[in-house]
Amino acid sequence: MVMIMARKKDAKALEKLMELGKGMVNEVRRGKSPNFEATVRSRSNVKYDESFGYLRLGKRKETRTFVNVGQARKFMQTVAVAAKCKKFLDEDAHTSIRGLFYQLKYSLGEDVEDELFTEQSESNPLIEDLEVALNLKREDLNLNTDRKGVVAGSMRVVDRFGGEETTINCAKQGRSGWAIPSDVDNNMEITDLKADYVLVVEKDALWQRLNEDKFWRKEKCILITPKGQASRGCRRLINKLADMKLPIYVFTDCDAWGWYIYWAIKTGSMNLAYLADDIATPQARFVGVTMQDIVDYDFLGKLTIKAKPVDLKRAQEMMSYPWIARHKEWVKELKTVMKSKKKLEQDALQGPRLSFVGEYLKKKIKEKKLLP
Amino acid sequence: MVMIMARKKDAKALEKLMELGKGMVNEVRRGKSPNFEATVRSRSNVKYDESFGYLRLGKRKETRTFVNVGQARKFMQTVAVAAKCKKFLDEDAHTSIRGLFYQLKYSLGEDVEDELFTEQSESNPLIEDLEVALNLKREDLNLNTDRKGVVAGSMRVVDRFGGEETTINCAKQGRSGWAIPSDVDNNMEITDLKADYVLVVEKDALWQRLNEDKFWRKEKCILITPKGQASRGCRRLINKLADMKLPIYVFTDCDAWGWYIYWAIKTGSMNLAYLADDIATPQARFVGVTMQDIVDYDFLGKLTIKAKPVDLKRAQEMMSYPWIARHKEWVKELKTVMKSKKKLEQDALQGPRLSFVGEYLKKKIKEKKLLP
Repeated sequence: MVMIMARKKDAKALEKLMELGKGMVNEVRRGKSPNFEATVRSRSNVKYDESFGYLRLGKRKETRTFVNVGQARKFMQTVAVAAKCKKFLDEDAHTSIRGLFYQLKYSLGEDVEDELFTEQSESNPLIEDLEVALNLKREDLNLNTDRKGVVAGSMRVVDRFGGEETTINCAKQGRSGWAIPSDVDNNMEITDLKADYVLVVEKDALWQRLNEDKFWRKEKCILITPKGQASRGCRRLINKLADMKLPIYVFTDCDAWGWYIYWAIKTGSMNLAYLADDIATPQARFVGVTMQDIVDYDFLGKLTIKAKPVDLKRAQEMMSYPWIARHKEWVKELKTVMKSKKKLEQDALQGPRLSFVGEYLKKKIKEKKLLP
Repeated sequence: MVMIMARKKDAKALEKLMELGKGMVNEVRRGKSPNFEATVRSRSNVKYDESFGYLRLGKRKETRTFVNVGQARKFMQTVAVAAKCKKFLDEDAHTSIRGLFYQLKYSLGEDVEDELFTEQSESNPLIEDLEVALNLKREDLNLNTDRKGVVAGSMRVVDRFGGEETTINCAKQGRSGWAIPSDVDNNMEITDLKADYVLVVEKDALWQRLNEDKFWRKEKCILITPKGQASRGCRRLINKLADMKLPIYVFTDCDAWGWYIYWAIKTGSMNLAYLADDIATPQARFVGVTMQDIVDYDFLGKLTIKAKPVDLKRAQEMMSYPWIARHKEWVKELKTVMKSKKKLEQDALQGPRLSFVGEYLKKKIKEKKLLP
């Protein structure tokens, strides 16, 4: 077993931004060049960390300095981004990174040097730099990220937003569910959580099926769908619920995309390795669907589909990752896919009757037929 | 002005399915071949209907008959789909068209002939056939469609779902909003609607901005984002709100995709012309962003982006549609795009300050600076 350590980011965003600025001003006053230090985010500095159980940034740092012809422009851009974020925090108003980009563009020729930003692709990496350097998330800097996914179950969300407080009862959201926001940390609390586990269902269609059958009430779980790949907000929510001592079970298709969704929730992903402390949930377990299901449930045999080249390629790749390869259950599963060249969708569980998907999940979870 | 007529589908789905089945059985008993008649859905039978003000199916019908070598297979498939939908209605349970496909595949060799369905692409058009032939929506047949989009504003939704009733107050959904479901008709009612108009905002990021500023409360509107192209459920909701006598204002980017979103809401689309009576809302008006805005708001000039070839191609095409070409305001707008080769995003309105987007909308709506 991997021992799991957790190291969360703390969100004193305004203080940290002011410290950053003051530090730079002090350096200038002392006749020195202001510097900006951040952990390197390139793939070469991303490693699977055994003690944490997920993909994480290594220790390599890079320093950006103002008095360097190659770095001056980027340095100024970073300062401009930090200044805008401070402004958003002061105003207690949120925007997207696209909104930030337009604010930067608008300021050109005024407080910011002309042509400092011409494309959004220039401002995006700077935001990541800030997140890493300040050890916080862009959500803490009042920058909204794409949101996706819904929740149903016995829990309440206290949402203090735009100067008002509202409490959302996730057991009373009807067919819709509670839409997972970009930021589930700041000015938001989960209360009255009454559940034995969290079930993460890849597809919204299956979530709706289970929600209609009130699976979450009968089985005492929190029912989440990320609607495909999990957004930052959704991964963060799963991580928070895991911290509240709930087991996390993930239910996806048996194919490249489904596996990717699971492993991104569990061990994080390369691109977001810098956020892994907040959004990777190594405690997660895989409930299905699996190739073994075809053996256990006869009817699934005729409901398989031909695997696509991408599925086979991905299965092969996954077996080369040490953190997957050491689980013999996963290796067996992936080898069966390679050999049979078949895939299986979670939707297929509705074959015999619409309620079967719930029966299947109940049984597998009860019998702990889970992959690590 | 186009006089607007409305002809809604009525949803006695179970009755209609039973009539269809009984009719076929009677024909067989009378020694005749059972038939199935549906309006042709191909593009050649889609026309812009002046009296309705949207794209609509013409009168051409096609008949499918069992005793025809070329049609027998399709006929049997249609009957199989209808039988499954009747079962879902009897069970009071919903699924997706993918779930329906797997139920059909599961039945192969049992009550349905072997290999009757091998690909979902075979079952999808049959569902459309049924929708047209029975004059109802697949949502009325307990088939869920992809859902997308959220709502905030002074209205309540009474949702009777899975044997329970819950009331959602769309003014108390915090940062999340109420997630628009697949079906906004069956077992669902809108009550306590207190608003002067509906504002449909293309991008979720802008919806979140306006929601944070409580734009919907200050300006007494229902704030909707379809999150890009509007889902069937979202278009149906907009249509229902228009029926409740609210003006509909649409706010998108000034580019090919933004215009498409607007016109799909207003006049419907080719693919969904068979549903136009339920989802096209010819009363909709376009609030922005427009090329004229660049003249009216100086700062927007430096926040334009280079138009893509697809934007210019689309602008040219739109001018060839008679229902667009007759509006001189739109022709002027599209010609300016063609000439300047520029586009403008709604996000750019956040340039001077985050709250500016609300100020802009308030002013334009008050001064009725709207395109038809």
